Amino acid sequence: MTAQVRPSSPRRQEEPVRQENLRTINLELVFRHIVSAAGPISRTELATATGLTRPTITRIAEELLAGQLITEAGLPHNGRAGRPRVGLTLSERGPAGLGLDIRADGLAACVVDLTGTVRHLAFDPATYAGRGAPDVLAHLARMARAAIDAIAAEDLTVVTATLAVPGPVQGGVVHSAPELGWRDVDTTALLRGAVHPLDIPITVDNEANLAALGELYAGDNALDSFVYVSGGLGIGAGIVLDGHLMRGARGWSGQLGHVTVYPDGNPCPCGSRGCLQTYASLQAVLGDRPAPAGTTPDAAATGRAEAGEPATIAALDTAGTALGIALADMLNILDIDTVLLGGSFALLASWITANARAEIDRRVLTAAWAPITLRPALLGPDAAVIGAALTSIDQIRRHPTTWLARRPAPA
Amino acid sequence: MTAQVRPSSPRRQEEPVRQENLRTINLELVFRHIVSAAGPISRTELATATGLTRPTITRIAEELLAGQLITEAGLPHNGRAGRPRVGLTLSERGPAGLGLDIRADGLAACVVDLTGTVRHLAFDPATYAGRGAPDVLAHLARMARAAIDAIAAEDLTVVTATLAVPGPVQGGVVHSAPELGWRDVDTTALLRGAVHPLDIPITVDNEANLAALGELYAGDNALDSFVYVSGGLGIGAGIVLDGHLMRGARGWSGQLGHVTVYPDGNPCPCGSRGCLQTYASLQAVLGDRPAPAGTTPDAAATGRAEAGEPATIAALDTAGTALGIALADMLNILDIDTVLLGGSFALLASWITANARAEIDRRVLTAAWAPITLRPALLGPDAAVIGAALTSIDQIRRHPTTWLARRPAPA
Repeated sequence: MTAQVRPSSPRRQEEPVRQENLRTINLELVFRHIVSAAGPISRTELATATGLTRPTITRIAEELLAGQLITEAGLPHNGRAGRPRVGLTLSERGPAGLGLDIRADGLAACVVDLTGTVRHLAFDPATYAGRGAPDVLAHLARMARAAIDAIAAEDLTVVTATLAVPGPVQGGVVHSAPELGWRDVDTTALLRGAVHPLDIPITVDNEANLAALGELYAGDNALDSFVYVSGGLGIGAGIVLDGHLMRGARGWSGQLGHVTVYPDGNPCPCGSRGCLQTYASLQAVLGDRPAPAGTTPDAAATGRAEAGEPATIAALDTAGTALGIALADMLNILDIDTVLLGGSFALLASWITANARAEIDRRVLTAAWAPITLRPALLGPDAAVIGAALTSIDQIRRHPTTWLARRPAPA
Repeated sequence: MTAQVRPSSPRRQEEPVRQENLRTINLELVFRHIVSAAGPISRTELATATGLTRPTITRIAEELLAGQLITEAGLPHNGRAGRPRVGLTLSERGPAGLGLDIRADGLAACVVDLTGTVRHLAFDPATYAGRGAPDVLAHLARMARAAIDAIAAEDLTVVTATLAVPGPVQGGVVHSAPELGWRDVDTTALLRGAVHPLDIPITVDNEANLAALGELYAGDNALDSFVYVSGGLGIGAGIVLDGHLMRGARGWSGQLGHVTVYPDGNPCPCGSRGCLQTYASLQAVLGDRPAPAGTTPDAAATGRAEAGEPATIAALDTAGTALGIALADMLNILDIDTVLLGGSFALLASWITANARAEIDRRVLTAAWAPITLRPALLGPDAAVIGAALTSIDQIRRHPTTWLARRPAPA
């Protein structure tokens, strides 16, 4: 036979293991065990769990304690005589992660510590009418500075920031965010160039992706594959598979709002017809009566649904059916069995879930033998900003040595 | 603020690095460099590339040579005086991978060596009418045995087998393969229990997944994210993202045939309406005139299209449009920019591509600034069986030490 097939190749050349990086690898291994422990864990338990020697554990623990990554905490008495047992647990001081979110109804900032606890959460209602991107991002940079200063008083140092934006983004540039009126906005450059510049590493990601990560961290660890669907003026989805966000080849995955529901249906601003967005966005639910001044679109839609307005109920029936058809496509393609409804879909879940579920059960091939779960998300409107902050702190959780190398000298 | 968010945890507890596994890690690192090299690579180049010392490289090379994983080969003369330079390259003897495929038109078996070269490829045309799964799999086990015996004469040892099946599968059990008339068939058990049992480790996977892996290995390494679409009696897709197959939470991803194109459209045997399958499968193209006896459905459809039969051309127009709508959904969800048409879609590409492309360009949100590539796949009808064989050998490429530990003693 001919040699027509080329051998596979590794996608990434790894580092060899030498004495120097052996130290890093084992420190990060021990730290990950402390991160994933349910509570304080003793040095002896760490030695057993990692297979490392007790002296190695002791040395690594000293380094982590000095770097404010962990702290000592009492362990329950084991019934034997002797000194009280002391365990190691994540520090509530030291490095912190900042999250920022540009929402349809305002700006949000959040700081979490290493334990994943929210230590600061600020929301500033704002409308974007007539405000350009530089103005909005300068405002957000001020909120970031206020958060960093507030949290410094609690002995927390914000190390990195993650910004959530409502649209596809690449390298900090938002390609298109119609609800903000943005096209090709370099958010990182604007945050760095603001009067109060944000001068720490900044990652920018789609809000549905970050909200999905928020749900992943906040929720039950057993749930490690799900689709988070973000409803609102736009519709997006964050895909979590085996505990990892599936961002796609260029970070633009989850454009659920532009999945075709009815090929010859409503025209969409994107240039296509029949996109989910034209049936299930907040505009579609509100119809030709936008939210009155001083009321958010979310609140207007929920209020009309609760009042049982026939036009709104009919629009929600249509939205639920369209959402179910689009979600069924997504689940057939991805093979994921859990959908979390977020944003406006969480608020309107009572009115849309039945129709959406009927379409999913009928259209997902595997639903016949493996049922699909469809339920509201846990975190509410703060999911994306909390997910953003957790994404920031997660970099330290995964690579604590980068923090140890650059942390400020102890006072 | 309240501690409402739980910290992330690693999904997998890693092994610590100790002296014993340091040896394994470095051996596998060196081997991966040899796998990914374009041709023979010298010991000196390996030392530079891996960062390991020259004596370590020499020791590892001895081990790999003894295990028939690599062989020595001449390097181009570098112009300096002295001995001819000798490099290391993958062996064409030693371990081999077996692929098996149950196609609509027959059974196939393939063996590849470590270099990814096809060393054996057998196809047995067969119809399944009236033949139960035990009979089909016993036939396939005989073909596997013949392949293993044939290849042993070339000093190749088949180490593992991978079976391609046309339908969702889990743990070797095919849930549903309507074109074979199968439901809940335990393929692994039947292959093991055959008169000539297949007594090596067997992996079973969907044919679209394996064909996608075949394309990944066979094609340009630069193409590491794409969707492979398999047309035929059924329609499936294999999703490759960053060089890895995306199998979904349970291995059932890529049910493209059951993506909804027209929500109130044709009834589908799955119980839903408007599935892509009802517009773009070979049955849909052949309409109410099935392939005559002695002609495969592929050949019948291609023949009628080439003859310009109006009903077939109209059916192919419909199929191309429906395929484009379903693929646009898939690309919006996954963020992948390349689609490879396989199976009957490759044969019929001239008649379906224009319509499919028009829908994709109109409906994929990011196509406006990042064009989508749509083209026939490289490997043709053997893609799945070659992909299956490559999947088998890839286990040795990734973990050569498992082969070293269990290989037969040298003669």
